[in-house]
Amino acid sequence: MANYKAPLRDMKFVHYELLDGNALTALPGYEEATEDLVDAILEEAGKVAEGVLHPINRTGDEEGCTFENGVVRTPSGFKEAYDTFIEGGWTTLTCDPEFGGQGLPHSVGLMVSEMMSAANQAFAMYPGLSHGAYNALEAHGSDDLKQTYLPKLTEGTWSGTMCLTEPQCGTDLGLVRTKALPQDDGSYKITGTKIFISAGDHDLTENILHLVLAKLPDAPEGIKGISLFLVPKYLPAEDGSAGPANGVSCGSIEHKMGINGNATCVINFDDATGWLVGEPHKGMRAMFTFMNTARLGVGLQGLAQGEAAYQGALEYARERIQGRSLTGPKELDKKADSILVHPDVRRMLLTIKAYTEGSRALTGWIAQEIDYAHKSPDPQRAKQADDLASLLTPIIKAFQTDAGYESANMGVQVFGGHGYIREHGMEQIIRDCRIAQIYEGTNGIQALDLVGRKLPMGMGRLLRRFFHPVQEFIAAEMENDEMEEFVMPLAKNFGRLQQVTAWLAEQGMKNPDEAGAASVEYLRMFGLVAMGYMWARMAKIGLAKQDGDEAVFYKSKVKTARFYMARLLPQCGGLMSSIMAGSSTIMDFEDELFG
Amino acid sequence: MANYKAPLRDMKFVHYELLDGNALTALPGYEEATEDLVDAILEEAGKVAEGVLHPINRTGDEEGCTFENGVVRTPSGFKEAYDTFIEGGWTTLTCDPEFGGQGLPHSVGLMVSEMMSAANQAFAMYPGLSHGAYNALEAHGSDDLKQTYLPKLTEGTWSGTMCLTEPQCGTDLGLVRTKALPQDDGSYKITGTKIFISAGDHDLTENILHLVLAKLPDAPEGIKGISLFLVPKYLPAEDGSAGPANGVSCGSIEHKMGINGNATCVINFDDATGWLVGEPHKGMRAMFTFMNTARLGVGLQGLAQGEAAYQGALEYARERIQGRSLTGPKELDKKADSILVHPDVRRMLLTIKAYTEGSRALTGWIAQEIDYAHKSPDPQRAKQADDLASLLTPIIKAFQTDAGYESANMGVQVFGGHGYIREHGMEQIIRDCRIAQIYEGTNGIQALDLVGRKLPMGMGRLLRRFFHPVQEFIAAEMENDEMEEFVMPLAKNFGRLQQVTAWLAEQGMKNPDEAGAASVEYLRMFGLVAMGYMWARMAKIGLAKQDGDEAVFYKSKVKTARFYMARLLPQCGGLMSSIMAGSSTIMDFEDELFG
Repeated sequence: MANYKAPLRDMKFVHYELLDGNALTALPGYEEATEDLVDAILEEAGKVAEGVLHPINRTGDEEGCTFENGVVRTPSGFKEAYDTFIEGGWTTLTCDPEFGGQGLPHSVGLMVSEMMSAANQAFAMYPGLSHGAYNALEAHGSDDLKQTYLPKLTEGTWSGTMCLTEPQCGTDLGLVRTKALPQDDGSYKITGTKIFISAGDHDLTENILHLVLAKLPDAPEGIKGISLFLVPKYLPAEDGSAGPANGVSCGSIEHKMGINGNATCVINFDDATGWLVGEPHKGMRAMFTFMNTARLGVGLQGLAQGEAAYQGALEYARERIQGRSLTGPKELDKKADSILVHPDVRRMLLTIKAYTEGSRALTGWIAQEIDYAHKSPDPQRAKQADDLASLLTPIIKAFQTDAGYESANMGVQVFGGHGYIREHGMEQIIRDCRIAQIYEGTNGIQALDLVGRKLPMGMGRLLRRFFHPVQEFIAAEMENDEMEEFVMPLAKNFGRLQQVTAWLAEQGMKNPDEAGAASVEYLRMFGLVAMGYMWARMAKIGLAKQDGDEAVFYKSKVKTARFYMARLLPQCGGLMSSIMAGSSTIMDFEDELFG
Repeated sequence: MANYKAPLRDMKFVHYELLDGNALTALPGYEEATEDLVDAILEEAGKVAEGVLHPINRTGDEEGCTFENGVVRTPSGFKEAYDTFIEGGWTTLTCDPEFGGQGLPHSVGLMVSEMMSAANQAFAMYPGLSHGAYNALEAHGSDDLKQTYLPKLTEGTWSGTMCLTEPQCGTDLGLVRTKALPQDDGSYKITGTKIFISAGDHDLTENILHLVLAKLPDAPEGIKGISLFLVPKYLPAEDGSAGPANGVSCGSIEHKMGINGNATCVINFDDATGWLVGEPHKGMRAMFTFMNTARLGVGLQGLAQGEAAYQGALEYARERIQGRSLTGPKELDKKADSILVHPDVRRMLLTIKAYTEGSRALTGWIAQEIDYAHKSPDPQRAKQADDLASLLTPIIKAFQTDAGYESANMGVQVFGGHGYIREHGMEQIIRDCRIAQIYEGTNGIQALDLVGRKLPMGMGRLLRRFFHPVQEFIAAEMENDEMEEFVMPLAKNFGRLQQVTAWLAEQGMKNPDEAGAASVEYLRMFGLVAMGYMWARMAKIGLAKQDGDEAVFYKSKVKTARFYMARLLPQCGGLMSSIMAGSSTIMDFEDELFG
C-alpha cells in the first residue's frame, strides 16, 4: 500500500504565498491564527493523518462496517483512532470558543480536513458530518439547543448526521414524507424512514444527533413545506450526558462500492422526540447553510483523493522498471528504465498534479473568502466574498470531484494490472472517490445550481465577482513577456467562457432546457478557466522565486502551469463547440426512441 | 438488479444493413452462414446470455472465487452454467470443423461474445481465454499438438490460458525469467512463476492448457529470445483424457476491484512438461496472433458493458420520478416527472447510446474485415482487410474500453446514490469494466502501437485503408442535402485528423517522444472520427428507412447520429489543440520536479 505524506509545503504555498493567509489575523476573532500557530497545527494534523488514519484506511475498506442485532460497528481501529482524534482536539478547530472551540479560520480547518480525507475518507466523514450538523445548529438553532448540543459536537463526544433522503426522494426533497407532530411541551414526535445516512449509526460516540427534514401537519405542499428537526439517538439526561433511548433505530446498512468504513444507514424514526431548528417550513433554508459547507467539503474530497492517487502513482512510476525510453535507454545499469521515462506516464502524472494543486489553490481561495464573508467588519467586503463563494461552490464540488475521479483512474492506469489488485490500495481510491460525484447533490445538480441559480442571481452580480479579478489579472500581465505563455491561453479561454456565458444567458431565458442541456459541460469549462486563473497566478509566483532557495519547488510550479495551459485548458475548445451546438439533439428525441 | 435483454435488432442492423453480412456466404467455408442460421444462433445466444449467465452475474461478484488447499473454486452456479454453455456448443462456433467446430464467421462469433460478456463478463472470460489459446495453437502449433488439444478446446471440456506476465514484467516481456529446458523426447521442462493469469485455475473443465512465454537456454537477450510453450495442467493420457498431474500449481488468487467471478491466479511451473509452439525464440510472433484477437475481444467488452449500463440506466430513468421538467410539469397525475425529462439525464443516456451503438458498428465492420482477411480467395482483398483490421484493432481496444468505462460511470450517475449501492448492479459494471482499459496491453500501449507501429507501417499503407473509404463517403455525400448535417462535421473532424496525422508523422520522425506524448489523445481523436464515419453511414440508412415499418428504430438511428455529431465529435477540437501543443511541457520536466 502506498504511503501518505501530508503535502504541507504546498498547503503553505497556497495559504501564504498565493493567498494572503496572514491577513486573516486582522479579522475579529482570528487574531490568534498566526503563521506560527497555523504551521504547528498543520504539522500535527499531518502526523495524525499519516500515522493514525492512513494505516487503517485499507483495513477499514476490507473489513467494512457491520450490523448485527441492531448494532452498527465500525472497522477495527476506528474507535481507537477516533478517541485519539478527539483527544487531539481536531473536532474543535473552527468551532466557536463559546462552545469550547478554537475559533480558527475555516481556511485552516479545510486544510486539516484535506489531510484527514486523503488519509482515510471513510473515517474523515464521521467528524465531517458532525461539523455539518454543528454549522446548521449554530446558524439556526435556538439558544437552548445550542447550549445543550454544540459543546458535545465541538468536543466530538457526540456526533451528527444529516437526514434528508428517503426512498422516494433524493434530489427532490419536496417529496419528503417524514412527519413531525407538535407536542404540548414544544417538542415534536418524528416518524418516518431516512436512507443513505452517512455516519448514521456507529460505535464511535456516546450519542448521535440527527438533523432531520420532516413535514409539519399544516405544511404547504412540496419544498416550501419542509422543516428541520434535531432528533438525538439518546435524549439528554439532566446532567447533560446521553440519557434514555429515543425512538431512533438503524434498520440496516448499505453495501456499497466504497467508503466501506463509513456506515451508510437506513434510519427509522418512530415517534422519536425532536426539536425544531429554525422556523417552521423553512427547513430548506437551514439545510442550505449546511449544504454549502458540505459541498465545499466534498470538493475537497476530490482534491484529497487526487493527492493520494498522485503520491501512489509517482512512487510506483519511480520504482517500476519496464521497457526503454523511446529515445534510447536511460538507465544502462538496469535491464529496463523506470516507467517515468515514458511520455504517457508523465502525461498522466502531470495531469493529476495539475488538477490536484490547481484544486488546492481554488479551494484555498474560496475558503479564505468564506472567512471574510463570516468575519469581515466591512459589510461590502463580506458580501462580495459571500457572492464569490456562492458562485464557485458548485464548481468546486463538481469540477474537483470529477478531476479527483479522473486522477484516481489515472493513478490506477499508471500501476497497470497491479492497480486493479486491492492490496495496492489504488483501486480503493477510485471506489471511495466515486461517491463524491454523487452525494450532497449530484454533479448534474451542481451544474443546474450554477446555471439556474447562481448565474442569474442579482443580474449577474455573482459572476462579476469572478470575472473582474480575472480581467484585472489579464490586463495587468498582458504586457509582461515572461507571463505571456500563461496569460495568452488564459485570456483566450476566459474569452470563450464569457462568450458561452452570454450565449447561455440569452438562450436560457428563452428556453430553460437550453441551460439544462449545457449545464454540465459549462460547469466544466468554468472550472477549467477558474483553475487556469489559479495556475497563471501560481506561475507568476514561481517565476519570481525559481532562482532562489527552493528552486525545485517553484520551478515545478512554473512547469506544471505550463503543462496545464498547453495540455488541459484546451479542453475548453471542444466543450464550447458541444455546448453551442444547443439542446435540440437532446430534447428533440422522443422518449420511445431511447429503445 | 437491472435485467439484460440481448440487443438482437441492433446487431442485425449492423451485420446486414450497415454491413453486408450476407456476402460472407460467398467466402469458402462460410457458405452455410446464411441469414436464417445466423439469426437463429443470435436468438439462442441471447437466451443463454439473458437466462443463464446474467442471473449469476451479481452473485458471482459477491461470492467471488475461492482458493483453499490449492484448489480454486468458481462462484455458485458457474459450473452448471458452464456445462449448459458447452452442451449448447457455444465454444465451437468459429472453430475449425476439422477439430469439431462449426466454422462460422468471426463476425458472428463476436456478436455472440458481446452478449455473453454483457450478461456476465467474469464468466465470459473463461471461454474467451480458451478461444485465444485455440487461435494461437491453431496458427502456430504442430499437427500433433493440434490433433491432441484443439478438439478439447473446441468442445470446451478443456480450457486455455495465456501466461505472459511475471512479477517483474508486464508490458516489457523481454524481462521474462521463466525457463524452458529441452528434453531428449522433444518436450521441455518449464520452470517459473506467472502472475495475473485470468482463468488460470478453476473447477469448470477437466484440464487447463497454459500457453506460456519462456526462454530457452540459448535465448538471445530481451524480446527476441522468447518462446511459446504449451503446458497442460494434466498431461494427456493414452486415451486422450486428462492424465497425471503436471508440475503446474496455483499459488494464490488475487483480490481485485472487479471480475470477481473470474479467477486471477499466480501459476507456478515447477519442472512442468511442455511443448514448443511455433519456432524457438519466435514466441512473440505467435503471441501476437492471440493478442490481436484478444484485443478485439477486449474492445468488445467495453461495448458490452456500455450496453449493460445503458439498459440499466434507461430503465431507472423511466421509472424514477423526481423533480419537475425545467419547462413545467409533464406528468400532472404524478407528484413528480420521471427523470427522463431532465436534459442532463438525457445527455448521459444519449452519450452511452451513441458510444455503444457506434462501438457495435465499428467492431462489426472490423470483424467482417477479419473474415475477409482469413477467407477471401482474392489475396489483395484479404491483405487490405488485414491491414484495416491491424490499424483499427488498437483503436477498438482502447477507445471502446474508454467509452465503455465512461458509459458505466454515466450509468451510475443516472442512478444517483442508488448507483453506488451494490444491490442495483450498476457499480459492478464500473468495477468489471475497469480492467478492460488495462489488460491485453494498457490503453497507453495500444496508443503506442497505433502511432509507433501501425501508422508508419508500409509508408502509411494501413492508414490509407481507412482514409480512402472515408474520403469516398464524404465525396459521395457532400452534395446530398439531407446528409449535410452529418457529412459536414465528419468532414471537418476528418480533416483535423489528417492534419494531426501529418503533423505527428513529421514530428515523430524527429523525436519519438513527440509521438509518445501525443499518442493517447491521438488514438481518442482517431476513434471519435472512425465512430463518426460509422454514425454518418448509419444515419444514411436511417434516413432512407425512417418512414417505413420500423420508424422508431430508424428515427432513433438518425437522431442519435445527430447527437453524436453535435455533442460528442466536437471533442476533437480540444484534443487537436492539446496534441499540437507538443511534448515539451511533458518531457522538459525534470524528474525531481514531480515532488
